[in-house]
Amino acid sequence: MADYSSIKGCMILRPNGYAIWQMIQKSLDKTFCDIGVENVYMPLLIPENLLNKEKDHIEGFAPEVAWVTHGGKEKLNEKLCIRPTSETLFCEHYKSIISSYRDLPKTYNQWCNVVRWEKNTRPFLRTSEFLWQEGHTVHENLEQAHEMTLKMLNLYKDFFKNYLALPAITGKKTDNEKFAGAIETYSLESLMLDGQALQVGTSHNFGDNFARAFDIKFSDKNNKLKYVFQTSFGVSTRLIGAIIMTHGDDNGLVLPPKIAPIQVIIIPINFFKDKNILEKSYKISDDLNSIGLRNKIDVSEKSPGWKFNEYELRGVPLRLEIGPNDIKNNKILISRRDNSKKYNIAIRDAYKIKDIVEEMQREMFLKAEKFLTENISYAENIDEFKEILKNKSGFIKSSWCSNSDCEKFVKDNFNITPRCIEFKNNLINREKISKCIICGEESNDNVFWARAY
Amino acid sequence: MADYSSIKGCMILRPNGYAIWQMIQKSLDKTFCDIGVENVYMPLLIPENLLNKEKDHIEGFAPEVAWVTHGGKEKLNEKLCIRPTSETLFCEHYKSIISSYRDLPKTYNQWCNVVRWEKNTRPFLRTSEFLWQEGHTVHENLEQAHEMTLKMLNLYKDFFKNYLALPAITGKKTDNEKFAGAIETYSLESLMLDGQALQVGTSHNFGDNFARAFDIKFSDKNNKLKYVFQTSFGVSTRLIGAIIMTHGDDNGLVLPPKIAPIQVIIIPINFFKDKNILEKSYKISDDLNSIGLRNKIDVSEKSPGWKFNEYELRGVPLRLEIGPNDIKNNKILISRRDNSKKYNIAIRDAYKIKDIVEEMQREMFLKAEKFLTENISYAENIDEFKEILKNKSGFIKSSWCSNSDCEKFVKDNFNITPRCIEFKNNLINREKISKCIICGEESNDNVFWARAY
Repeated sequence: MADYSSIKGCMILRPNGYAIWQMIQKSLDKTFCDIGVENVYMPLLIPENLLNKEKDHIEGFAPEVAWVTHGGKEKLNEKLCIRPTSETLFCEHYKSIISSYRDLPKTYNQWCNVVRWEKNTRPFLRTSEFLWQEGHTVHENLEQAHEMTLKMLNLYKDFFKNYLALPAITGKKTDNEKFAGAIETYSLESLMLDGQALQVGTSHNFGDNFARAFDIKFSDKNNKLKYVFQTSFGVSTRLIGAIIMTHGDDNGLVLPPKIAPIQVIIIPINFFKDKNILEKSYKISDDLNSIGLRNKIDVSEKSPGWKFNEYELRGVPLRLEIGPNDIKNNKILISRRDNSKKYNIAIRDAYKIKDIVEEMQREMFLKAEKFLTENISYAENIDEFKEILKNKSGFIKSSWCSNSDCEKFVKDNFNITPRCIEFKNNLINREKISKCIICGEESNDNVFWARAY
Repeated sequence: MADYSSIKGCMILRPNGYAIWQMIQKSLDKTFCDIGVENVYMPLLIPENLLNKEKDHIEGFAPEVAWVTHGGKEKLNEKLCIRPTSETLFCEHYKSIISSYRDLPKTYNQWCNVVRWEKNTRPFLRTSEFLWQEGHTVHENLEQAHEMTLKMLNLYKDFFKNYLALPAITGKKTDNEKFAGAIETYSLESLMLDGQALQVGTSHNFGDNFARAFDIKFSDKNNKLKYVFQTSFGVSTRLIGAIIMTHGDDNGLVLPPKIAPIQVIIIPINFFKDKNILEKSYKISDDLNSIGLRNKIDVSEKSPGWKFNEYELRGVPLRLEIGPNDIKNNKILISRRDNSKKYNIAIRDAYKIKDIVEEMQREMFLKAEKFLTENISYAENIDEFKEILKNKSGFIKSSWCSNSDCEKFVKDNFNITPRCIEFKNNLINREKISKCIICGEESNDNVFWARAY
């Protein structure tokens, strides 16, 4: 899937890893396209003065940007940073192309690489360079920006469910944890099999913060000049890490069928002895192609046992075996990667494999969702909180007074962070909001706490 | 299509420009995939010592790389360059994953951005940052590497013809013009409407140059350690420039249908007066979707005249008009963007539009090919050469003795470069090889000279 490179913290995405990213990209791009998002491409480099325009933004990102100081043999007049994110570039462009309410909304997105100079890196989860998409939108007012922020959060949630079989808690970040420059950040937090949380996507509402810093105005229907309101949202190659650590098992990767580059691996057994076997294999492959199932026949000289292991390791959702006995009985054997369930199917019924694929996708999500639900604990007070911390991993939900001192107290004493604030309209597994578990004050919110990657 | 950014020489690809790149990428990626090319992703940054390993390579690229010297607040121990191309990174990776003939061949590709610090830039044609694909392959011997180099050259040639309607001359670069580190470079040279040549793709054979510099060896079938042989090949967002300047006219862009993001723009006329018009429009749109034609209905409040201009400017291949009279007669009117040819079609025959699309694609290529062919002149001697230079633009073919002094003489005196050396087995428009037009020596080759972007 991946390999280290000689550049600290930078990863090589090998064919099996990149193919998954390409599947994610293709599916998500289609989802964006369906709601009118347009793709663009902004420069890799940001001049220092541009990055500096929004005060909070530069404070947040300055410690982790890579600086270009020389072009060819010459020292540059102004140093350029490699984009850690592209709000500033989008703002500069929006300033030049937006003048009237007729130009709004703008819903742009770009697929690109970004660099954040990380001290501690982990393949897929935290790398100095990573691939991602960053959406950047512009609206007439705060309400529309807020609506867009939540729309994209929910779009991600559905996409994660339907394509990655990945359940996630959604909620708002605390002020300390929000994106540098945002007025509010919403995130998707999923739970890895080791009990640690992973932030898998974010959606930010900037209000008019950037508009004021970059002077982006439009004339409204009454010909009055007003600042625009903006949002941004993104997911990255970290999603590959989420898939590995949500669905993987001792035998390797388990890929959700919807984003598996190969959905069905066809393994003909003893096909050197009977040419019927290969002929039938190709026929089945054609049948699968015609119903849109991505498949491959492995006709290499390696043993069936080697092949079984190899595709298990790579997480191919379904294995289809066809050997001399199967030909005789006009049958094929299907094995599901996630639970080893076997299906005997008549060769002429190969189209039924589509049902198995869909069942597997659904059941993988349900299994992961069950794991997530079972690993959310509720703490009424600090003693319960400590008790859960000692005995369980996963999320701990508790009430919190919104005071950052209390947040800091938990971080410092228990090495655990607030992942997000629960939505008030969340009706599933809803616990009442009671007193802050730290200071005992009346609270307005419940928070999900967890150790996180 | 594009906009300038505040970073010198860097371009913003706007939605209409990026959509074309996405179409090119999708089609070419499919073409690669069909012959077994696998996609990977290598880091953006290259440590100085890695870039320095192959002597010719670093000499060629050192003057045009951007250097990262600081990460966050700290100075780096070793400076890193932003990839101008990724041979060195691929070599390092290949060294770690190749050990046996069983690991060969490797045919990897990556889609990414690269940076070359250009002094003089032009949108799409020469920008400091651009998007491209770079293929990198590894083989057991020189013959296989040579074969691969030509295979990819021809793959590009076919792709340019079938998708971009772009004819190109192919041939080998002179030693002076070849890629830094290659033993031979082949290129595709197309002719812009202003008579200047544009290099639109290259394919390089490295022999074992990089293998020796990076110590990449494999054990062959007889268990003998040998150096590998490598190639690379690439095309970039420059292709968008080639499309603009090959097919464009006074009214704007003309897109070859195969890579047009919208192939048919449906413009309902006076649809506020008769709801049948919109109903029929949606029906036609569905029909076009079902036969795989990308289309859009413009239901905005703007006037038909404004819409005609807008989509003409954007190069949409076919315009489909449907108004009150058309409804009465059960007809629609199709206009071709490239030659304004009109087609009256019965509404129920909308499927015939597919034929028009294919005809347009074919004819656009033939027109461009005719222009190219008519603009290749042959010079028997230096007087003819000067005469052609004075009166015509385009390519001048002449014999050349292979001596770089003669090449330099032409460059210095006529401000014109050898684009490529003609293939000896080129049977079309073949002129005999005679004496070098500069020194009069016997020659082995004909060369295509041209002013180039």
